[in-house]
Amino acid sequence: MLSANQQKRISSLSMKKFRQKYRKFIVEGEKMAAEVLSQPNFPLESVFATERWAAANPDLLKPFLHKFNLVSESDLKKISNLTTPNQVLLIADMPETLPEPALLRPDICLYADGIQDPGNLGALWRIADWFGFSALFCAPDTVDAYSPKVIQATMGAFLRVPTTEIALPDLLKALPEHLVMGAVLDGTPVFKVNPPEKGILVIGREGRGLSAEAEALLQLRLTIPKHPLGGAESLNAGVAAGILAAALRRNS
Amino acid sequence: MLSANQQKRISSLSMKKFRQKYRKFIVEGEKMAAEVLSQPNFPLESVFATERWAAANPDLLKPFLHKFNLVSESDLKKISNLTTPNQVLLIADMPETLPEPALLRPDICLYADGIQDPGNLGALWRIADWFGFSALFCAPDTVDAYSPKVIQATMGAFLRVPTTEIALPDLLKALPEHLVMGAVLDGTPVFKVNPPEKGILVIGREGRGLSAEAEALLQLRLTIPKHPLGGAESLNAGVAAGILAAALRRNS
Repeated sequence: MLSANQQKRISSLSMKKFRQKYRKFIVEGEKMAAEVLSQPNFPLESVFATERWAAANPDLLKPFLHKFNLVSESDLKKISNLTTPNQVLLIADMPETLPEPALLRPDICLYADGIQDPGNLGALWRIADWFGFSALFCAPDTVDAYSPKVIQATMGAFLRVPTTEIALPDLLKALPEHLVMGAVLDGTPVFKVNPPEKGILVIGREGRGLSAEAEALLQLRLTIPKHPLGGAESLNAGVAAGILAAALRRNS
Repeated sequence: MLSANQQKRISSLSMKKFRQKYRKFIVEGEKMAAEVLSQPNFPLESVFATERWAAANPDLLKPFLHKFNLVSESDLKKISNLTTPNQVLLIADMPETLPEPALLRPDICLYADGIQDPGNLGALWRIADWFGFSALFCAPDTVDAYSPKVIQATMGAFLRVPTTEIALPDLLKALPEHLVMGAVLDGTPVFKVNPPEKGILVIGREGRGLSAEAEALLQLRLTIPKHPLGGAESLNAGVAAGILAAALRRNS
C-alpha cells in the first residue's frame, strides 16, 4: 500500500533539488535491484515491490525485510521513472562522505565536462567501472549523476565507482600530480601516447566538445584518429570516452 | 500551410510499415537539415520549415525551393518527432538500390545483430562513418535504421555509409572472403589482434550480447579486456562497438 505522502515524496526524488534535500535517490528494475540487494550492507532506505517480485526473490529480500513495502503494480507505476513495466523500486541513501580527490588511489579518473544526456553520463560511469578508473567527477553544469535515468544507465557502476561534483580547477588543486588529458581535433593519436600513471581524462559535452576553460587546462591533447575514408564530424560523447579509456588501458 | 492529408502522411512515416510502403523517411533539426541541404543532389521529396528558418537559410533552400513548404511552428510541432522545438523537417527518399554486399569496396563493415535502442544504432552508424567502414548491415530483428530517432542519432552518417537489412548467413554468402569478428568474454584481446583486410564486425544486442546464431559463425573471437580493478559486467553496445572499431583501425 502506497500512501499519498509516500507517493509525493518518492516522486519528488525525480528532481535534483529534492534528491539533494533528502540525500536519497531511486534505483529501479529487477536487474539493478538484484545487484543492489545482493550487497547486504548497502545503505538502503526502503524497498517497494510487487507481490510477484517478492515471491520470486525471497533471498534478495531477506536482509531488507524490515524496509520492505508491498505495493500493487499500479501503485508502482505512479512512482516509477521507467517506461517499461516495473516490479521493484528502491530508495537509496546517497553516500554521506563525498570522495575526497586526494584520498583516491593514484590512477586515472574520468571528468564529465558538462555532459547533458543521462544515457551518456551513465555510459561514462560504466566505462570508468570497466576500466578500473578511480572516480567519476562531474562539472557543475553536468546532468545530475543521481537522476533516475543516469543511475539506470550505469547498470550498477554507481555501486563501485565514487562520484562527486567539482569544478575542474578545484580538482587540479586536489590532484596536482595528475596529468589533465582530453580529446581535441589536432592532438596526438591516442594509440601513440604512453598512458600516465596518474591522470584526469576530461570528456566534453555532446555537440560542443570540451569547454574553453577545460581545453585551456589540458596538459596532454589527445585525438581519436579518423580514418582517411571517414566522413563523420565527431563521435558520440560516450563512444569517444570508451575509445580513449580503452586506449589508455590497452597495455594493462 | 499543412493540409490534414500531408499531416497524416508525414506522421505515418514514424512507423516502419509506412516508411517501407512509401520508401520515404524523415530528417529533422537545423543541424541535420543543413548537412542534407548542402548536398544539392540529395534525393529529397520536400522541405517543411518555418518562416524564421527560411529567412535565415536562403542559400541552403535555394536548390530546393520547388520542394519547399512554409509551415507555422505549431504545424511543424504536429509532424515533428523531436522533443525540442524544431524549425525544419525534410522528407527524404530512401536509396532506391540497396547496397549489394558484393559491390562494396573490400574492407571492414559493421553488422548490427539485433540492436534495439535507436540511439545505439545511430552511434554505430556514426562509428562506421568515422572509421571509414564500407557499410552498416542490420539483422532483421534490429530497430529500423530509417526510424526518425536513429536518423537523428547518426548526425548525418546515413548520408555517407550505406545500410541494408540482411540475415548474417546471407551476408556471409555474399562476402565469402570476409572474416567474421565479434566480442565475447573469452576472446583474444582486441589490441593484440592484427586487423584483417576484409572483415565483418558483429555487434550484439544490448543486455544480451551476440545471438547464439551469430556467435556460432564467428571466425575471430575478440575481447575488450576489463581492467583488473574493473567491476562492470559489460559495456554499452555503442561504446563497445567504438572500442572494437578503433582498435581495428589503430594502425591506419
